[in-house]
Amino acid sequence: MSGRILLLSAVVGFATLCQAATDPLPAWRDGAGKQRILDFVREVSTPGGSHYVTPAERIAVFDDDGTLWPEKPGPQGLFALERLRLQAPQHPEWQNQMPFKAALELQGRYLQEADDASVFQLVAVAQAGRTQAAFRSDAREFLGTARHPRFQQTWTRLAYTPMRELLAYLRANGFHNFIVSAGSVDLARILASETYGISSDDVIGSSVVATLREEDGKLVLRRLATVHSLNDGAIKPLSIDQHIGLRPILAAGNVRSGGDIDMLRYSQRAETPGARPQQSLQILIRHDDFEREYAYDEKDRASLNAADANGWMIVSMRYDWRQVFSFQPAEAPASAPADAP
Amino acid sequence: MSGRILLLSAVVGFATLCQAATDPLPAWRDGAGKQRILDFVREVSTPGGSHYVTPAERIAVFDDDGTLWPEKPGPQGLFALERLRLQAPQHPEWQNQMPFKAALELQGRYLQEADDASVFQLVAVAQAGRTQAAFRSDAREFLGTARHPRFQQTWTRLAYTPMRELLAYLRANGFHNFIVSAGSVDLARILASETYGISSDDVIGSSVVATLREEDGKLVLRRLATVHSLNDGAIKPLSIDQHIGLRPILAAGNVRSGGDIDMLRYSQRAETPGARPQQSLQILIRHDDFEREYAYDEKDRASLNAADANGWMIVSMRYDWRQVFSFQPAEAPASAPADAP
Repeated sequence: MSGRILLLSAVVGFATLCQAATDPLPAWRDGAGKQRILDFVREVSTPGGSHYVTPAERIAVFDDDGTLWPEKPGPQGLFALERLRLQAPQHPEWQNQMPFKAALELQGRYLQEADDASVFQLVAVAQAGRTQAAFRSDAREFLGTARHPRFQQTWTRLAYTPMRELLAYLRANGFHNFIVSAGSVDLARILASETYGISSDDVIGSSVVATLREEDGKLVLRRLATVHSLNDGAIKPLSIDQHIGLRPILAAGNVRSGGDIDMLRYSQRAETPGARPQQSLQILIRHDDFEREYAYDEKDRASLNAADANGWMIVSMRYDWRQVFSFQPAEAPASAPADAP
Repeated sequence: MSGRILLLSAVVGFATLCQAATDPLPAWRDGAGKQRILDFVREVSTPGGSHYVTPAERIAVFDDDGTLWPEKPGPQGLFALERLRLQAPQHPEWQNQMPFKAALELQGRYLQEADDASVFQLVAVAQAGRTQAAFRSDAREFLGTARHPRFQQTWTRLAYTPMRELLAYLRANGFHNFIVSAGSVDLARILASETYGISSDDVIGSSVVATLREEDGKLVLRRLATVHSLNDGAIKPLSIDQHIGLRPILAAGNVRSGGDIDMLRYSQRAETPGARPQQSLQILIRHDDFEREYAYDEKDRASLNAADANGWMIVSMRYDWRQVFSFQPAEAPASAPADAP
């Protein structure tokens, strides 16, 4: 290597280093969206400023599937399918009963199209009768070994790099980050801890009814097949209030089902619709990156309409994110749609 | 003041200072109980030790009324009564309807005898139709201004000094403390924050059903009169699992209704009943201090029996606590029982 190239490498390396040291969000492309995040965080965390918010009230809530990691498919459906397949021989009735029939026959294709309620029902039934401890142990193993059908990475490696940066940046500025999942709270807890360093009690999600039983002189919790709470749509603000007891000042979700609209609206303190949000920030992620992740939208465009009406920040994965994953994704499959597992 | 007395004062002052610096629990009398706490904390937080527990798993759960502050009466009943009295003229039906009739007629005496479910029903009805924000604002004012009928202190000053020390000591040793209340989660959150420095999301409790409504273009939560969850007895382990997702290694409750037995048992990992607890500690507080606080027991002695059978630590307020409150309590009332407000 000539001295000149070596020098150039050193200069480039140094420049990259300087940028990393000064830019808390290097995986976000510079632009209005990124600037809005930086401005908001500076405003609410500057003591004496007119938009200052105390650290105790700096609550940020994040949807998970499709907001923090891919949801095509989400991990809980694949986890449920794996166990349903094992149990199917003992359950001939599933061959004629929905959603089991469809799930067992169509497998991944079913998970692509099914709504969150149906998929979570599969989770509830597939794991019914097990102790919470055994269920979680299996889930941890699944998430650490099963691979995403397209990216061929374990679920614990599928965190979006820009969102990892955003959560770390918020934490460094006194925010308390929570995950508010429409999926299984147990799976979300494992992924949140292993990919985002978020502790178990900072995750809210869907849950099944459990029962407290005495077994061998010890109290254990066993899961029933009944859904206790499906944490989606209008339930998200209620579960946030129940779990945290404070109204968030930052909320992030994604475009797909409209399930995050109420959570984002709830985090907004603007007195009148359409007014510029004050002391709060709403982030809506749009999956428009066929090459690096997926491209899909919402049939009724409800999330984007709500974003327009309420002045929310819309994030284009394609244009706003310099990098999506920590790994280099393989080529997109040749046949569209790219999202079939 | 003579030089000799001055010198003596300085020596005594220095000795007190030294003790405070070395003893993390100065309000606890030295003895087997205190030593058990110190040993347990040292064992689970010593890296490499055979009982070491990672910080993420050092979960401690505390009942509140009667464990962290007095429950004769608990604050939620008095708060509900205040508002029920205001609304009574508009509700003539309450004059013949239980528990309203009894509460309005007997007032404090009713609260002494009523079970947690009835008292929480009063809270639910008294605050029905209000927004969560308005309800919390009133609750905060009540707890900061209303005075305990016997101690003549605001509720925010009624924390037990030994328990404040214990929670601070646990926190300093990497524990994450949660409050698991049978009473209103909202009131517990305010008191937990103001007296124990515990953040809102680290409090689990009873809640009412709320509804998400659009009002003036903004989403607000309004309380209904229906109880969503009464967080007592066998529900406590379930709500801990739901909210935290980890089994606690320390649990503390008190003798009165037996409502903490399941929580304490759940925190115990001993494989067989009666075995010495390993890597976990259960603390049961007994109110046997008529002079400084109250003296009452449980009719069926269920909590004490469970403590004996499972090897739990029983704390006598009278003998184990050098100090109960941060203030000097007034004389106990001459007439027994001392617990009538």
